[in-house]
Amino acid sequence: MGIVMGPNQYGKAEVRLVAVDRSTPRHRIKDLTVSSALRGELDPAHLTGDNSKVLPTDTQKNTVFAFAREAPVGEIEDFALRLGKHFTSTADGITGARILIDEHAWERIQVDGAGHDHSFSRGGDEKRTTAVTFDGEHAHVVSGLRDLVVLKSTGSEFHGYPKDRYTTLAETSDRVLATAVTARWRYSSTDVDWAKSFESVRARLLAAFAETHSYALQQTLYEMGKAVLHEHPEIAEVRLSLPNKHHFAVDLQFCGLDNANEVFHAADRPYGLIEGIVTRDEAEPQPAAWYSIDEF
Amino acid sequence: MGIVMGPNQYGKAEVRLVAVDRSTPRHRIKDLTVSSALRGELDPAHLTGDNSKVLPTDTQKNTVFAFAREAPVGEIEDFALRLGKHFTSTADGITGARILIDEHAWERIQVDGAGHDHSFSRGGDEKRTTAVTFDGEHAHVVSGLRDLVVLKSTGSEFHGYPKDRYTTLAETSDRVLATAVTARWRYSSTDVDWAKSFESVRARLLAAFAETHSYALQQTLYEMGKAVLHEHPEIAEVRLSLPNKHHFAVDLQFCGLDNANEVFHAADRPYGLIEGIVTRDEAEPQPAAWYSIDEF
Amino acid sequence: MGIVMGPNQYGKAEVRLVAVDRSTPRHRIKDLTVSSALRGELDPAHLTGDNSKVLPTDTQKNTVFAFAREAPVGEIEDFALRLGKHFTSTADGITGARILIDEHAWERIQVDGAGHDHSFSRGGDEKRTTAVTFDGEHAHVVSGLRDLVVLKSTGSEFHGYPKDRYTTLAETSDRVLATAVTARWRYSSTDVDWAKSFESVRARLLAAFAETHSYALQQTLYEMGKAVLHEHPEIAEVRLSLPNKHHFAVDLQFCGLDNANEVFHAADRPYGLIEGIVTRDEAEPQPAAWYSIDEF
Amino acid sequence: MGIVMGPNQYGKAEVRLVAVDRSTPRHRIKDLTVSSALRGELDPAHLTGDNSKVLPTDTQKNTVFAFAREAPVGEIEDFALRLGKHFTSTADGITGARILIDEHAWERIQVDGAGHDHSFSRGGDEKRTTAVTFDGEHAHVVSGLRDLVVLKSTGSEFHGYPKDRYTTLAETSDRVLATAVTARWRYSSTDVDWAKSFESVRARLLAAFAETHSYALQQTLYEMGKAVLHEHPEIAEVRLSLPNKHHFAVDLQFCGLDNANEVFHAADRPYGLIEGIVTRDEAEPQPAAWYSIDEF
Repeated sequence: MGIVMGPNQYGKAEVRLVAVDRSTPRHRIKDLTVSSALRGELDPAHLTGDNSKVLPTDTQKNTVFAFAREAPVGEIEDFALRLGKHFTSTADGITGARILIDEHAWERIQVDGAGHDHSFSRGGDEKRTTAVTFDGEHAHVVSGLRDLVVLKSTGSEFHGYPKDRYTTLAETSDRVLATAVTARWRYSSTDVDWAKSFESVRARLLAAFAETHSYALQQTLYEMGKAVLHEHPEIAEVRLSLPNKHHFAVDLQFCGLDNANEVFHAADRPYGLIEGIVTRDEAEPQPAAWYSIDEF
Repeated sequence: MGIVMGPNQYGKAEVRLVAVDRSTPRHRIKDLTVSSALRGELDPAHLTGDNSKVLPTDTQKNTVFAFAREAPVGEIEDFALRLGKHFTSTADGITGARILIDEHAWERIQVDGAGHDHSFSRGGDEKRTTAVTFDGEHAHVVSGLRDLVVLKSTGSEFHGYPKDRYTTLAETSDRVLATAVTARWRYSSTDVDWAKSFESVRARLLAAFAETHSYALQQTLYEMGKAVLHEHPEIAEVRLSLPNKHHFAVDLQFCGLDNANEVFHAADRPYGLIEGIVTRDEAEPQPAAWYSIDEF
Repeated sequence: MGIVMGPNQYGKAEVRLVAVDRSTPRHRIKDLTVSSALRGELDPAHLTGDNSKVLPTDTQKNTVFAFAREAPVGEIEDFALRLGKHFTSTADGITGARILIDEHAWERIQVDGAGHDHSFSRGGDEKRTTAVTFDGEHAHVVSGLRDLVVLKSTGSEFHGYPKDRYTTLAETSDRVLATAVTARWRYSSTDVDWAKSFESVRARLLAAFAETHSYALQQTLYEMGKAVLHEHPEIAEVRLSLPNKHHFAVDLQFCGLDNANEVFHAADRPYGLIEGIVTRDEAEPQPAAWYSIDEF
Repeated sequence: MGIVMGPNQYGKAEVRLVAVDRSTPRHRIKDLTVSSALRGELDPAHLTGDNSKVLPTDTQKNTVFAFAREAPVGEIEDFALRLGKHFTSTADGITGARILIDEHAWERIQVDGAGHDHSFSRGGDEKRTTAVTFDGEHAHVVSGLRDLVVLKSTGSEFHGYPKDRYTTLAETSDRVLATAVTARWRYSSTDVDWAKSFESVRARLLAAFAETHSYALQQTLYEMGKAVLHEHPEIAEVRLSLPNKHHFAVDLQFCGLDNANEVFHAADRPYGLIEGIVTRDEAEPQPAAWYSIDEF
């Protein structure tokens, strides 16, 4: 027939792990969503249902929980590296792995002006992320963040674009610019202070968004990526996916009111979607690091 | 036939209003989701399609946007009161109204240690809410919050419950307690400093959750409500809906590890759901204030 | 202080039960989401954390699964009645209960023109529902459906409504009318052929939506409710919640095209929301049957 | 600095288009969600905010609506080809495009045994999809379906897998197998009867799922892909993403009941995720056809 099995992977998705560090009365918590995907000698499983190389996804889940007990979870990049190394080095026939982790932030509840020892509130919807890929030779670390919603109430223009017979949009020198940032950045090595790097990258992204006088969301995207690469030699490239969350100034002339960018309708759909990669010209592409990662 | 039209209401749901105060270079934003529902002489609309008393939901939406321009939005309770008064006093045949508003928080983006003038980031998933009802005679204000996710990593027990043939749960003197707080509290009057009251109620709810050594989520619920009523004479009753977001300690004996409440699986469904009203014994019930409001 | 515990309830929400009838090789499946809420002598639990009357929500979950094994699940109304009777008659101090069940439909996969014996596909997003309440004296059955999305491409008008300074909507004698039906109807007794009644009510709702030449969604709502009551003496009242899922004809004059209701933008938010109760004039209201049920 | 702009694209996402064919009294509707993404000479937009080659996403949206009026929408593949060809041939500097379309099914409401002329109900959550890519030289068509939820109540085994210290899963010769099928298949040409091909592919996927006695979801995946390629010479490869929607048989020994695969808990998370490509050995890979498409 000439029908064959091509690339494939399998694993356990969205293991909801919460680890509490109780080594002192001042507890600390890690709240992670962990997904593992394994690759390797899996043709027999597909062709004949021979599972001799299929480490069950249930076992992968158990491994995530056990690893969180065997040693402190630490930074998500380190935890993903430990898991990926384990699967590729101990499971017979498994030669590659991709570990995705989302970290959900918690803050201490303030009581009488001080953070409580063991009571926490969820710190918003934003997630810190990592995607660690073992490709048989190398371990690639791509970290990031998701659902960081930002808005500028001025300092954004949009004009000079081509017009055709379907154009109705008016040019503007002042609009609201809002987006939900998804960013992923690839590290050149695994010898990185992950937490420090993350905090700094996040601050750079936010500052670039805030400080760029924007003529296009594309320009803001580039400035955000450039700001990260400029400050972070350990990072080879940044990928950004920026939905343009439209805020339309409501035309209030129907009741005799002006509206100088003060009252907006925040629309759901459709939305613009701006995606791009900011990279170093000398950076060697590493497609394996990005294989099967959803975002652009 | 004896078939008649019973109680009914109609309106525009989820108007997404963002208002920017540009009166100084240091902008401020209000991000609201507004729903209006009108009640009154609507039998003809139902029975014969006579729309002579049906102020269109499209007009209700326009009114929300126009009101945000005619005067500063202010606190959500005041904005809801203005809208409800408008509809019930100007629309022919409309005798009652319920205005629901959710407020989404934004924070200034920090750049070089200072909050930016016109760049903001979304402050999490929690919403401040109000439900204002005009019942023909009175205006009732029920304010609240939603999606405030909290967790205690210790200080929670659960035992002493009845056992039957379907019981498998083990008693425990130490468990994780987590919930997503939905609270609504009814004010006795409309002469309230809404923002100040809200901030204080929220702080009381959080402190009571943190400080209560819990023997049941029911007990925590009562302590949360009591703390609010104790400090806030302007509030007549508090209604709380608390899902028990189960965190199950993973049994790691399969690989020879103990797990003294350090590694948890955060489950999605099913979940416990604890709902209750904490009230003053002298408070007169006001069912009209709660009519058609979803939460318990 | 005068602070007291008011009405309250607790239970296990969203138990995801799938029951397979394997009594013959031609399997049948029931896919249910079951939520129980118990009421009774629960002040001690709230006031002091005394759980002696708190049948754990975990036990409630176990009971749901065990009951599905002890006897065939049958119709959701019967299953809810069994569960509610069990909790209120066997649990010490529990005097009331509300059981919510959503049923998810499955269809047999067609292979060579015949339905397969044990392979099924999910029959859409619509759910058949029931809400059974034991109030200490009576068992009330309120059945319904959710997420039944319907659309008429013509046969809907909207005009004759009042205008004010905020009006911009144009009157129309031809528009698209679309909604997602949530309906709940209260039975006068529990001696009902549930499946047969459900199928007939659903058919009546659909036919009334289709056949009513609509001058307002309110009118359609009434006709839908009336059609049910007319055919179903066993039903005392029908409650409908109908979001007006706006389909806006796109103005294509910008490129010289007309648009006679042929091309629409299906909007997400805001949306109209029309809610109402159609009832028999001789029907005695039964607020206990509806207590703490979300829909209008 | 050596920082440069890499690959990028931008467009309008999730245009919600509903087109009504009113050419006869028996209306027909097309309900589509359309997303366009353009690629080309966009470095100036990113580097300096020069929008001279940025056809606004608003114009792209207008184009979608206008095209639906200028000619019948037809099959989604044809509509996507028309749009992609338009953008790449008329917009200055735009050399590539990717058009994603999801189609939502509607069925005629049955009244007195006949389908109504202009009243419809939504046919479930499943979507027919297409992803058409213009890469500057070729137009690639990748069609598919999403959210097709299927379940087998028997005829599925899982054993013979490797065990390690983290293994707890018991081998089984009878389990429930359930998944939500996401499939995408690449056509070798654009000279295809799209509707006929889609219906046949869908039937093949369902039949293969139903008829395969499964020893692993991987094996089922392969059989599904093979069945499509076997019958459809116009298709070069099939990509499948199959979450293993776990149905766990509930252990009812706590109350003395057995459970021979009759009562299950349908779990939400975590879930297995099996992804793979079934292809022809002589097929030339076409990475451009799959660029920036989410699924594996």
